[in-house]
Amino acid sequence: MQKDKDIIDELQETGGKKYNEKIKQTIENYKNLSDKDKNCLHIYYGYGKGKTTAVMGLAMRAIGAGKKVAIVQFDKGYDGQNEHYSERHILRKLKEIGYPIEIYPTGCERMNKDGTFRFKNQEEDFAEAKRGLKIAKDLLESGKYDVIILDEAVAAVAYHLLKKEDVEELVDIFLKNKNCEFIMTGHKIWDTLEEKADLITEMRKVKHYFDAGIPAREGIEF
Amino acid sequence: MQKDKDIIDELQETGGKKYNEKIKQTIENYKNLSDKDKNCLHIYYGYGKGKTTAVMGLAMRAIGAGKKVAIVQFDKGYDGQNEHYSERHILRKLKEIGYPIEIYPTGCERMNKDGTFRFKNQEEDFAEAKRGLKIAKDLLESGKYDVIILDEAVAAVAYHLLKKEDVEELVDIFLKNKNCEFIMTGHKIWDTLEEKADLITEMRKVKHYFDAGIPAREGIEF
Repeated sequence: MQKDKDIIDELQETGGKKYNEKIKQTIENYKNLSDKDKNCLHIYYGYGKGKTTAVMGLAMRAIGAGKKVAIVQFDKGYDGQNEHYSERHILRKLKEIGYPIEIYPTGCERMNKDGTFRFKNQEEDFAEAKRGLKIAKDLLESGKYDVIILDEAVAAVAYHLLKKEDVEELVDIFLKNKNCEFIMTGHKIWDTLEEKADLITEMRKVKHYFDAGIPAREGIEF
Repeated sequence: MQKDKDIIDELQETGGKKYNEKIKQTIENYKNLSDKDKNCLHIYYGYGKGKTTAVMGLAMRAIGAGKKVAIVQFDKGYDGQNEHYSERHILRKLKEIGYPIEIYPTGCERMNKDGTFRFKNQEEDFAEAKRGLKIAKDLLESGKYDVIILDEAVAAVAYHLLKKEDVEELVDIFLKNKNCEFIMTGHKIWDTLEEKADLITEMRKVKHYFDAGIPAREGIEF
């Protein structure tokens, strides 16, 4: 904590000359990198709120900069009629008005009418995860997108819908081509995934109103 | 880690009957809460990537559910010509096509043409922070919004542009009215803020490509 305070205050006091020299050097070095080395793998994981919203915000930022974005979601199904995920209305609208953004929801209905969940995996859940995996592979091989987001792909491993090897296979395709920014969310990571990622943020739950009796709310949690 | 694994696996094995009973009870209790008690204060803080994108994604989700959203940004200025923040193109477009979303950027230009930063606060930076504070107060008092987001309001305290008391004053207005969901981002929190918040996620930097020589990139960092 003290360390961070010192850095911010030092930048204020000195004007950050040293820091700016480093930025200049970084920008200069970056120009000389191959296009492949400019693309990174991000993982957002943990039990705190803010993972899916973070990658949705990143998708928004990317299309705002003219990038082509594809999003595959795992275990967040859509039957074409009942849309539980409010953010997808906006993603579809953005596509409709011409932004280059594709959204591929996969997964079966998990929410019961009374707000409870169907936790047990059924055959259809596995089939849908497999379908998502295939879409993700094709997108990564296509070379058509600047940013590919697999929402809940890493979570699907915790829920036994995908294997670690499935996710690692996707990472290996990314590492082979490195022709896009590659972004995944989940609950838990593991060592080999951590090694291969360029950026990892843990969304750490410090405090959550679920524990104080507030349920998931439309427009806030979904 | 083991604990989390057990919960996920237990839900799989048992079908989560106990957990679903708790959800049902929570939903039932929630119905009996006053409208005031249904609104929460969120804080997203830390040094990891994903704070601003998380609140932008949340804004997208909220308008997707028909909620009215207002966003004030601190120290992320816009001169009306050079837009450094790609996500704001999309926010403005969403407003333009009719979604109830207002965006109030405050702050002066911090980025130099060569990619370096102007770190030292000038008089205008303080004036802009004060302007943002006034807008935030008016929004919170207006009762016109379902979701009010103050991006970097808590960060502005670390950068000495706002005082802790300024932020606490906003929180007290929220706590008095509790007529909207209130959301802030920043780098560091403090005890009294932590006590008053209903939800806190630390975006913890586990690994960042900045440390490996990748600079901030358009469409990814801004």
